[in-house]
Amino acid sequence: MIKIDYSNVMSEKLGEREGILVQEIEAYRQIILDLHKEIYNRKDKDFYFMNLPFQDISKIKETARKIKENFDCFVVVGIGGSALGNQTVQDAVNGLDYNLKNFPKFYVLDNVDPEKFALVMDQIDVRKTIFNVITKSGSTVETVANFLIVLDMLKTVIGDNWKRHIIITTDPEKGFLRKFANQEGIESFDIPPNLGGRFSVLSNVGLLSAAVCGIDIDELLEGAKYGYQLCEKSIDPFGNPAYLIGLIHYIANVKKGKTISVMMAYSERLSSFVNWYRQLWAESLGKEGLGQTPVKSIGSIDQHSQIQLYIDGPKDKIVTFLNIEESFRDFEITGDIPTDLEYLKGKTLKQILDIELEGTKAALVKAKVPNLTITLDKPSPFNIGLLIYLYEMATGFSGLLYKVNPFDQPAVEEGKNFAYGLMGRKGYEEKLNEYKNLSKITHLLEI
Amino acid sequence: MIKIDYSNVMSEKLGEREGILVQEIEAYRQIILDLHKEIYNRKDKDFYFMNLPFQDISKIKETARKIKENFDCFVVVGIGGSALGNQTVQDAVNGLDYNLKNFPKFYVLDNVDPEKFALVMDQIDVRKTIFNVITKSGSTVETVANFLIVLDMLKTVIGDNWKRHIIITTDPEKGFLRKFANQEGIESFDIPPNLGGRFSVLSNVGLLSAAVCGIDIDELLEGAKYGYQLCEKSIDPFGNPAYLIGLIHYIANVKKGKTISVMMAYSERLSSFVNWYRQLWAESLGKEGLGQTPVKSIGSIDQHSQIQLYIDGPKDKIVTFLNIEESFRDFEITGDIPTDLEYLKGKTLKQILDIELEGTKAALVKAKVPNLTITLDKPSPFNIGLLIYLYEMATGFSGLLYKVNPFDQPAVEEGKNFAYGLMGRKGYEEKLNEYKNLSKITHLLEI
Repeated sequence: MIKIDYSNVMSEKLGEREGILVQEIEAYRQIILDLHKEIYNRKDKDFYFMNLPFQDISKIKETARKIKENFDCFVVVGIGGSALGNQTVQDAVNGLDYNLKNFPKFYVLDNVDPEKFALVMDQIDVRKTIFNVITKSGSTVETVANFLIVLDMLKTVIGDNWKRHIIITTDPEKGFLRKFANQEGIESFDIPPNLGGRFSVLSNVGLLSAAVCGIDIDELLEGAKYGYQLCEKSIDPFGNPAYLIGLIHYIANVKKGKTISVMMAYSERLSSFVNWYRQLWAESLGKEGLGQTPVKSIGSIDQHSQIQLYIDGPKDKIVTFLNIEESFRDFEITGDIPTDLEYLKGKTLKQILDIELEGTKAALVKAKVPNLTITLDKPSPFNIGLLIYLYEMATGFSGLLYKVNPFDQPAVEEGKNFAYGLMGRKGYEEKLNEYKNLSKITHLLEI
Repeated sequence: MIKIDYSNVMSEKLGEREGILVQEIEAYRQIILDLHKEIYNRKDKDFYFMNLPFQDISKIKETARKIKENFDCFVVVGIGGSALGNQTVQDAVNGLDYNLKNFPKFYVLDNVDPEKFALVMDQIDVRKTIFNVITKSGSTVETVANFLIVLDMLKTVIGDNWKRHIIITTDPEKGFLRKFANQEGIESFDIPPNLGGRFSVLSNVGLLSAAVCGIDIDELLEGAKYGYQLCEKSIDPFGNPAYLIGLIHYIANVKKGKTISVMMAYSERLSSFVNWYRQLWAESLGKEGLGQTPVKSIGSIDQHSQIQLYIDGPKDKIVTFLNIEESFRDFEITGDIPTDLEYLKGKTLKQILDIELEGTKAALVKAKVPNLTITLDKPSPFNIGLLIYLYEMATGFSGLLYKVNPFDQPAVEEGKNFAYGLMGRKGYEEKLNEYKNLSKITHLLEI
């Protein structure tokens, strides 16, 4: 069960300048009706993620079973949409201590920082490790670079059997990795061509690592399916959770000047979910001069870091709190409590965390900072699948409200092309020249 | 050696609308002169951090030596300014793999999320662990709560000798923990009363954990001392690195509408530094409706998550790239490289990371997004001490530019007081009533 409490974004609580009027949401009924139709028309095209709850996952489950029997470590080699979702599901469902207690251990190689690469490699034995290389295009530089080094290690250490240690997840036809998998006969999974990387966690991209780590992926998809059904049946903005989330943020942005969307998780196991949301929101909506900047925050830590700014700084933020009612672990304050701290006696850490969230919410309301709270009763695969689906739909819907394409990311190409030029890739000589012009150092202070 | 390349914030590169003119900086010469005097007048008051490079650290070193001999784990119990700096110095100097290879292992208990608490406790043996409880006020709820649970565990497991496992770092006179340390005869360190929490990393707060983990804290302070000297001798905005950083961000904010300050580290060992900066910038400057929102980013990961937004979204950002020339580990792409990937042959991961940064910078310049790059030749204690000092001074100086008090955080109190009301602390009954009024649920969607 998920509760979306949006009391604290509405005018009854915040007044009419900072708060949203019920009528302001009502005004979008006709627009929602039109966009709803458009979304379902595009279901098999760029809104392809809507099909994922209904996919056949028998091959994933079978492969996961074999991996569990044969390997101690499972390493995702991917970046952005090919890594953030995997980490999200893992942390949210399995918690932060999974690797301390379970096999196969789960790691992600998601950067070309060699020290980060080394950190993972130092913790695993490649002879007992399987690498799942994930890239939609099949040619993402960071992923391919990490893969080539892993490949060399495998060939050196394992010898002829190296192919057993690799699974490739990529486009069914295009790209270097698809060609490589076919040529070498390496086990592979497809990423549906119409599915965008950042919307792919509930596809083969995210499901294999989840299943390998013991997560019930049927239940994960059941949650997403429930999200699908909720969103399909309701065009009432107050009844459709995805449209509601999208609309609140859109109105907050374009009518109230909330250019920043803070997501503050009062549960460390949702920390990775916020990273995933950050990509989804930024890359889908940040275009043509539009889009909110997503900001990650963790409670209660950031009460001691960011809350001063949220309350007394510029009124440019809307905050979404994430909370989970259940805690798998807890610690009670007992024993000899000094008189000055009597109010802590008998409290558990979880109770204190919940109280800190309540205190922060009240302080934001008092300062007229709009905030909504999404509460999961527990971090079950069902709830996480549902939450993921809702945010994907909220993002796709928001793209239509902003009248931008939520599924492309054209501005990312420029930097990639300069990098290709610098690496000496054929056909990018022109970009190298352009780079040289743009990169002149004119103002430098050396100390 | 640290290089500050600010070419890409200036008008020569970005044009006059987005870029800063040399004259715009020049115009602050008289203001800088006045503020420079004010800063040195306040050196022993609220700008107390300026004294830290010159402190006596012999007791810290002696205590660290004893801890190293007797314990396997060192756990900081703190939050905000009492934890972020410790993690910053540790990660920046010792890297991400310190705990895999060294003793005493280093952990931080910085949240009341019981699952995070459990994660740390599951990795240590309290019999071989010393806990450094750090809080300026001596009564921070999260820290005290964690401490009381740790205390109970120690008494249960260790018995009479529990006191040997605690070091308290707090105000010399005030607060619960000072009283407790004095009554029980527990080893303790002072936090200078005029020193703000978020400016305290180079005091006893951050130095003990650093020394315990083998970091040369003399060199750390030498770097800070060099920063002090650089800033003392120059009132030239182009020669004083702290004033330059402060002024560029101030002008970008108030004259160019850059309400967001992104700090993007192209080195995972500086990830914690960005967390530290986030608190420093947000809590010091985010007041009276002013202040930039700091945003954390990691390269090259966030090229696949945030760069689309930075380039093509609202023009409300100034970006600071952090980079380190040296890498302690590296991996070269060798062996049989497929023809389509020939451009990667012979490259190392570090070279690719550097190229990705260069490509991203050029793409930002082309899109007229202001950015500066701070490059360390290596992550030495000297450089990290220097960088910390410069950012503290840049922050203090910026507070004076904005005409806010950079050393208080009044807006944090409100949420704390509501929390006290909810916990039933005496004297906070009124806050509980106020909370009840503010927290009414008026709009809820349950799914």
